Order: sequence, then structure tokens, then C-alpha cells
Amino acid sequence: MRLSRLLRPRTVVSAHCDLPCGVYDPAQARIEAESIKAIAEKYQASEDPEFRTRALIIKEQRAELIKHHLWVLWTDYFKAPHFEKYPHLHQLFNEATKLAGAGGAKGSVDPAVAGRLLAKIEEISTIFWETKKA
Amino acid sequence: MRLSRLLRPRTVVSAHCDLPCGVYDPAQARIEAESIKAIAEKYQASEDPEFRTRALIIKEQRAELIKHHLWVLWTDYFKAPHFEKYPHLHQLFNEATKLAGAGGAKGSVDPAVAGRLLAKIEEISTIFWETKKA
Amino acid sequence: MRLSRLLRPRTVVSAHCDLPCGVYDPAQARIEAESIKAIAEKYQASEDPEFRTRALIIKEQRAELIKHHLWVLWTDYFKAPHFEKYPHLHQLFNEATKLAGAGGAKGSVDPAVAGRLLAKIEEISTIFWETKKA
Amino acid sequence: MRLSRLLRPRTVVSAHCDLPCGVYDPAQARIEAESIKAIAEKYQASEDPEFRTRALIIKEQRAELIKHHLWVLWTDYFKAPHFEKYPHLHQLFNEATKLAGAGGAKGSVDPAVAGRLLAKIEEISTIFWETKKA
Amino acid sequence: MRLSRLLRPRTVVSAHCDLPCGVYDPAQARIEAESIKAIAEKYQASEDPEFRTRALIIKEQRAELIKHHLWVLWTDYFKAPHFEKYPHLHQLFNEATKLAGAGGAKGSVDPAVAGRLLAKIEEISTIFWETKKA
Amino acid sequence: MRLSRLLRPRTVVSAHCDLPCGVYDPAQARIEAESIKAIAEKYQASEDPEFRTRALIIKEQRAELIKHHLWVLWTDYFKAPHFEKYPHLHQLFNEATKLAGAGGAKGSVDPAVAGRLLAKIEEISTIFWETKKA
Repeated sequence: MRLSRLLRPRTVVSAHCDLPCGVYDPAQARIEAESIKAIAEKYQASEDPEFRTRALIIKEQRAELIKHHLWVLWTDYFKAPHFEKYPHLHQLFNEATKLAGAGGAKGSVDPAVAGRLLAKIEEISTIFWETKKA
Repeated sequence: MRLSRLLRPRTVVSAHCDLPCGVYDPAQARIEAESIKAIAEKYQASEDPEFRTRALIIKEQRAELIKHHLWVLWTDYFKAPHFEKYPHLHQLFNEATKLAGAGGAKGSVDPAVAGRLLAKIEEISTIFWETKKA
Repeated sequence: MRLSRLLRPRTVVSAHCDLPCGVYDPAQARIEAESIKAIAEKYQASEDPEFRTRALIIKEQRAELIKHHLWVLWTDYFKAPHFEKYPHLHQLFNEATKLAGAGGAKGSVDPAVAGRLLAKIEEISTIFWETKKA
Repeated sequence: MRLSRLLRPRTVVSAHCDLPCGVYDPAQARIEAESIKAIAEKYQASEDPEFRTRALIIKEQRAELIKHHLWVLWTDYFKAPHFEKYPHLHQLFNEATKLAGAGGAKGSVDPAVAGRLLAKIEEISTIFWETKKA
Repeated sequence: MRLSRLLRPRTVVSAHCDLPCGVYDPAQARIEAESIKAIAEKYQASEDPEFRTRALIIKEQRAELIKHHLWVLWTDYFKAPHFEKYPHLHQLFNEATKLAGAGGAKGSVDPAVAGRLLAKIEEISTIFWETKKA
Repeated sequence: MRLSRLLRPRTVVSAHCDLPCGVYDPAQARIEAESIKAIAEKYQASEDPEFRTRALIIKEQRAELIKHHLWVLWTDYFKAPHFEKYPHLHQLFNEATKLAGAGGAKGSVDPAVAGRLLAKIEEISTIFWETKKA
């Protein structure tokens, strides 16, 4: 997280419901991805079959939330001028949501996969906060 | 709907859950969009405030489902080779989901807006079925 | 799928939300049941315990959707004259929804069970489209 | 509520999830219907447009829950021998769920409509508890 | 269940949606907890891995419903005077919802844990009905 | 937001699902409350009845999410030692969730009410981050 983001005025908020209210924040996706990473670590550290099944149930739900939060940013927050300025943005979101799905965080319990997802979300977050400053 | 699609063998199915099961079908989005159009028409034909409020409540839900079904196709069904072959596919999905949202079917009760959304979904559907034949 | 259904004019739509919008389509239940069948086949072909658990989690959700889509048709689309004309319709829906539940698609990962559920949905679909033509 | 039901031993429980767990109780539908009735009464007593819109939003949700709870009883709890013993049971459930939908509690804010829905649920409840005693 | 509660007039109802409609009933939480107990018993009695996984999936959902129903009572039904009269009520709800979560019914398939949860809900229910009589 | 919180190391994460994964963050509730405030402001600035109805529909959902996120913190994150150290914590959460409900953000479209809710969430957030540092 860049210092510029940490020090942004608190009143700068951003849109996330489809009224739209205008309050968006990639932190919603990031928090779920941190959860996925922690779940994967606890899964690997446990041999209890009931705990492991619960971990898979919950991971599936959190990964679905990540996809949802990212889709909302891609469709609702980012506009044509953003896609012009960041030509790889479509692909970045497509890769990030794929990485939250069957080919990534849903299909794997490897903490490293969750780590890669977190890195993708951070890439999106960096672009997001750049567009907020502009 | 093209004749080729109507006559496709029944056993040709396609993926939609994120196991993935491999059963996808743009009909899911289309059915919801037809619902939105019918709701908009009934809304315009009614002066009952209670009916109109119910129409807005339900339209909001169906429009959210459209966004979800389209996002699933974009992230889970379409792969890199598809995006290479159809370079405007990212933008098509971005426009379609925006058209299901606040700037379109959610924010409007004009049947013509629902008609434009249906046309976008048909564009996606045409590409989808082309990729299934390939 | 009968030819008559394939060739029906595209503007013939049908009701599925409870406004009601008047757009119903048994394809919604069928698509989920095709998903269940594909999940069961993938489950049988895999020995990966994590994949198998994910398959059970997702199958449970799709089966619940099938029950919901069928219940909607039974309560919201079909009216008294239909039940008079098709006296076994109540039982057909009761059997179909039971077959999507614990005694069928939820409780089993046998693709043949999913096949029986698909056949039941096809029976309902045939009646549905007959009533749309009438 | 009959005295026999009030005095039934507390340990007599009944199935409601689709494991199935074997714990069913028509009280789930009844509580939601009582809510619908109270909402309708408050709606009629208020002239505040914001309150009235909220009432319609919430009523829609509670009515959907009623349909769901009744559908679960119809599909998951009642078995072939019950339908033989109570030949009108299919129709009773079909009418009750219709009465919770657009043609009843969803489409109306008349407390009398909610009252008729409560009466239907009570009919189902009476049969339900008879089958539990048998 | 106390006789006084069994014999309470049927028209005495209570609030549960956040209009609020004024219809609350701890039976909603109790029914789910009875389900959890039955699921745990069936889990212990079965050696079928698919059945056991389904049991864990469903138990997770019912436990979440218990937490929700209890939270609604704590926030929406109980008011300042109740918390004054029953000073341990906050802690009782906090313990009950914890007992429905990872440290209780979610994290365990021991029927005894479900039994302890049922007992906590009964404590809440007793207080609830006392406040309704007052 | 205090500087100490802004500058907290990025790797300090916290629990939010009920595995539990150990990743909690009051930002989830705050983001929804910021949304509520923006919705209320847009509602007051608009005279379009359709927009206003949509605003009420969406506000209801976001307010429910706030209640949920706060309940999760209260039950799942905070433990007995926290409640000992902060004796008013139970009441603070009870007031905050009430303020997100019918007596606050749900029942009102006054931005000032949303502001009071945000202030309550900030109080909770301050305590939360104190406990994380300890």
C-alpha cells in the first residue's frame, strides 16, 4: 500500500452499490483474499477432516465474494476513459477473477495461489487509487 | 436466434458453475432480460403505486442476476484464445453489464432500454455459440 | 426437444418472476440439471478429495436451484385449468422436486440419478410448451 | 391452535433441511405470515411514503420465505402415503403458495389477504400435526 | 416449554423483520438448533463420506441461520429497559451466538454441543416470553 | 482515522469468516455506512420517484450488511477479555446495530443519521485496532 494512499483524506470515498452511491473500495476484495490465504494456511496445518471440509466450504464462499467485488469494480466503477488510459485493465480483471475461481483460489488450497490473487488485487487497487487522485 | 443454433444437437451442453461443470448457456441471462422488458412494459401500463414499487423491487433483482450470469460467462467460460479471436469481447461484456446496471436496466423502466440489453446479450450469445461449434 | 419447440417464434416468451412478468422457461431448471449430471460425472472420474468436496458443495447449490425453478413453475405458471387438463401434474412436480432433493440429485453422485431428473424435467417441459401453444 | 398441539411433548420434533435432518415445523411459515399481516396493518396506518416503500420491500421478502417454507414441507416432508390419505393436499399447497405470491400476499397490502393466507397455513399445519401423531 | 407459554393466547404475536413488523419468536432459532442436533446425530451414525460432507455443508448453513435469528432478537427486539432488567442478557446472547459458531455448532459435530446450544436458546426464550407477558 | 492505524504494517490482518480465518476488519462495516450516507444525500437531492424507490431498496440492503458485519465482529472477533477491558462494548455494538436498523439508517434517509452511524462504527473501529495492537 503506497504512502499516498495511506495519507489520502478520509473524506475521499468511492461508490460500490449500483444506485450508484459512488463508494467503491478494492479493500472489499482484498479482505476476502486475505481470508482465503489464512484459510489455506490453516487447511495445510490441519489433519482434521471435519475442519478441512469446513475450510473448503468457507473458502468457496469467500472466493465467490472476491469475484463479485472485482466484477463490480470492473463494470460499475471503471469507465471508458479508464480503459483507454489502462489498455490492459480488461485483461487484468479477467485474470484476477479467473484467479479467484476454479483455476485459482476456489480450485486450490495452496497459500501461494492466494498470494498471487492478492498481488493481482493489489495491481487493481493501485490503478484504482490512481484514478481517484486524477 | 439462428437456425444453426436451433438445430444444434441437444447433447451439446456447456459449463456454468465454477467447479467448473462445463455447462454454460447465455439463455440464463436472456431469460432474465426478457423478464426485465416485460416488467418495464407492465410498469408503464400501470398507475397503481404499489404495483409500480413491486416492479422496481423485482426489476432490481433480475437485473442483478443478468450481471451475474454475464460475468460468469466472461470470467469462467471465455478463455484467452476466445479473447484473441474476438478482440472486442471484453468491451462487449463491459457494455452489456453496464447496460444491465444503473446506467441501463436498473436505472430505467423504459422497455426500449431492456430491448437494447437483449440485443447486447444476443451479440454475446452469437459469439458464444460460434465458439461452441468451433 | 421437439421440433415444434425449436421453431417457436422467438417472441413467444413466458413469465418467471412473481410480479409476475409472465416470462417462464423450464430451461432454467434443465440447465441446472445438466450441470448436476456433469458434476456427477466429474466426481466419479476424480480421486482428488478436495475436488470431490467442492463437487458436493456445488451440487448442493445447483440442486436447490432446480427445486426453486420447478416450484416457481408449479405455483406461479400453472393455473387451475392446467391442473384439470393434466391431472398428474401435481404428482409430477412433487416427484421431480423430490428427485432434485435428498432422495435424488442432492443425496447421490450417480450420473444416472441426474439423468432421471433430466427426464422428469423434460416431461414437465413438454407439458409447459403444450400449454403455451394452446 | 388445537390443545392437542399445544400439549404435544416437546421432544417431538420434525425435519426441515434437505439432509434431511427430519425437523420440520409449519411454524416457520406461520411466523412469516403473521409478519406479513402486521406489515399490511402498519402500511394501512401510515401515510409516510418512505415507510410504505420499506413495507413493500420487506413484505416481498417475507412472502418469498413463506413460499419457500411451504414448498419444503410439500416436497421434503410429505410422502406418498400422506398424499393418498389427504387427496386435496397437493391443491391445498398450490393454493397456499399462490396466496403467498402475486395473487395474494405479495400483490396486496390488505390485512384480510394475509389473514386468508394464515388460515391456509393453519389448514396445512393441522394436517401436518395429524401425520406426526399417526 | 412452560405451561404458561403453551397457553398464551394465539393472537399474542411478536416482531421479527426490521420494518419492524413486531413479530418475533425464538422458535426460529430453536428449530434450526434442533436441526443441527439431528444432523450431528445422523453424522455420527453414518460412515458414508458423501453423506458426511453433505451434513457438514448443511450444518454450516443452519448454524449461520441460528446466529442471524439470535442477532435479530438481540438488536431488534430487546430494548434498553430489558437490558436493565436482565443485566446478563448481552453476555447470554454473546455466548449463545458464539456457541452457534466456530467454537460450537459450526466447529463440532458432537450432538452434546448442539444440546448446549439448545439450552442457551431456551434460556433466551424464557426471558423473551417473560418480557412479552410483562 | 488515526495516524497509528494508517501506518500499521500491512501484514497485520485480522479474521472475519467463521472458520475462523482470523481476518477481521471494521472497514467492511464502514464502507457500507459510507454508501448509506451517499445514498441518503442522493435521495435528498433527487425528485425522481423511481430513483428514490431504488435508493430505498439499496439502502435497505446495505444497512443489513452493516448489521451483519458488526454482529460478526461482536460475536466472532471479540472475546471475554475484551469485554472485561471495555465494559461498554456490548452496549456500543447494540446501539450501533440498532442505529443501522429501523430506528436509524434503515428507517431514515437523513444523511445526519448515516453520519451518526459512521461515528459509532468509528468508535468500534478504534477499540478494534487497540485490541489488535495489544
